[in-house]
Amino acid sequence: MINQLTANIKKTGAPIVVGLDPMLDYVPGHIQKKAFGEYGETLEGAAEAIWQFNREIVDQTYDLIPAVKPQIAMYEQFGIPGLMAFKKTVDYCREKGLVVIGDVKRGDIGSTSAAYAVGHLGHVKVGSRSFAPFDEDFATVNPYLGSDGVNPFLKVCKEEKTGIFVLVKTSNPSSGEFQDRLVDGRPLYELVGEKVAAWGESLMGEEYSYVGAVVGATYPEMGKVLRKIMPKAYILVPGYGAQGGKGKDLVHFFNEDGLGAIVNSSRGIIAAYRQEKYARYGEEAFGEAARAAVEDMAADIREALNNTL
Amino acid sequence: MINQLTANIKKTGAPIVVGLDPMLDYVPGHIQKKAFGEYGETLEGAAEAIWQFNREIVDQTYDLIPAVKPQIAMYEQFGIPGLMAFKKTVDYCREKGLVVIGDVKRGDIGSTSAAYAVGHLGHVKVGSRSFAPFDEDFATVNPYLGSDGVNPFLKVCKEEKTGIFVLVKTSNPSSGEFQDRLVDGRPLYELVGEKVAAWGESLMGEEYSYVGAVVGATYPEMGKVLRKIMPKAYILVPGYGAQGGKGKDLVHFFNEDGLGAIVNSSRGIIAAYRQEKYARYGEEAFGEAARAAVEDMAADIREALNNTL
Repeated sequence: MINQLTANIKKTGAPIVVGLDPMLDYVPGHIQKKAFGEYGETLEGAAEAIWQFNREIVDQTYDLIPAVKPQIAMYEQFGIPGLMAFKKTVDYCREKGLVVIGDVKRGDIGSTSAAYAVGHLGHVKVGSRSFAPFDEDFATVNPYLGSDGVNPFLKVCKEEKTGIFVLVKTSNPSSGEFQDRLVDGRPLYELVGEKVAAWGESLMGEEYSYVGAVVGATYPEMGKVLRKIMPKAYILVPGYGAQGGKGKDLVHFFNEDGLGAIVNSSRGIIAAYRQEKYARYGEEAFGEAARAAVEDMAADIREALNNTL
Repeated sequence: MINQLTANIKKTGAPIVVGLDPMLDYVPGHIQKKAFGEYGETLEGAAEAIWQFNREIVDQTYDLIPAVKPQIAMYEQFGIPGLMAFKKTVDYCREKGLVVIGDVKRGDIGSTSAAYAVGHLGHVKVGSRSFAPFDEDFATVNPYLGSDGVNPFLKVCKEEKTGIFVLVKTSNPSSGEFQDRLVDGRPLYELVGEKVAAWGESLMGEEYSYVGAVVGATYPEMGKVLRKIMPKAYILVPGYGAQGGKGKDLVHFFNEDGLGAIVNSSRGIIAAYRQEKYARYGEEAFGEAARAAVEDMAADIREALNNTL
């Protein structure tokens, strides 16, 4: 799947990923009305609304982008119906040829991580049969439990040619509280970055590893250092747009081949119609507003890369 | 819910929690056969098997124990049907008067943690109505993202009187890889422990805080230090039994009042029928074997506490 991701990025010329993190609040009134009309103001109604919203966003953008990143929390908050909408979204995006990065931030001790790994990135056995329950291409993984929490993911990724992005330096303001603490004079996130590089060595695709890293756009200087520590890891970069990151902040997350990073925007794309810049589209045409926002984001990053590389 | 947990522990005299982490492999043949007969070798069949297994374990032990801890990964690996079995298990245990600790190890940045918090420990709004999608009493939380990943949980816990157990020092062999690294001469887990104490100050129940910590039974010396750092935090202690922890290792996790810790056993209880010690029960009576294992575990811990406190 890392080869597929790289191929999709080359094809689209856009190292970007659309974060499918639909707060119910982002879903335009006409979609909510229809969904609630059909299912009532229920968890099922909420799930239907976000699924219909996603479908329109995907229909309007899939030809411009290599990948999507559904954030499972935004579905899990609506319980079982919400998770069914997550699954429908994953399936629909894969049908459209998109690489799907499940932003699940799972991670546990050995046998438990193995369960998450088969559930999200592989196949689970039931008697003589096997099933791919969530069937994502990549998942995000929390490293706090150490190697024996990550190894079961590596095992499944090797078998299935799926991949992970390990949280190294997250985009939020208080990420430094633990991640930046100095260990032997170096921040903890660098040690995690070294582990990512080591975990990835035995899981190489053609150019990049199946083991990537999450590093927030909001910390460009740290991105520069981490890029060198993990030369073969794809970096998934959240925090562009709404969280404050800009194209020019992102150049050091990329390698000289112009690859090696994929930048996420969620609210900035899927709720673009609420920004002044895209207000002309109106609420009904939220999908077209998302498409325009994708084009602008891709251009912003392309320009920044052209000026640097 | 922390008051309920404390009350349940006093009532049963057993500071233990049964980990409902059913690997399909643990489920006796007659239950699998019935479930697969009804639903086929499908995700639905697997989910039915673990639900029927759980129900028998709960029926046989609920009067002896204060709480259960379903590990969501073991359900999530079976996709949507698995998560429906998780939800059924949570509901059934609550009906039986048990405190339910959802071992979900979630954690993300602000708005995303908020979604997990309402989904697991609170209510989510849909139009003019609100729902409690998973409705656990407590959830485990990963601290790697720092305070702004934890604060949304605190907000929901305050409103709902639910609680969290933050991962401080996990029971697995490689937990030290990051958690033990020295920061200003002190291991990282101590800094996390200090944060747990600080987060918990504004969320006090009668005797203990709604903010607890996870510290593995496999690291008793660290438990002793952490007990002092977080005097008002309940410590959830995994790693007893199958992972190697014993009653006498656990005394320092408790306060002098004999409270402040709750010890988890999963495989050691739910798959007791497979141990030589309980083989006399046979596979069909796996629930009675679990009951005997609970009684033995409670006696082991009680004896260790009586010898010390």
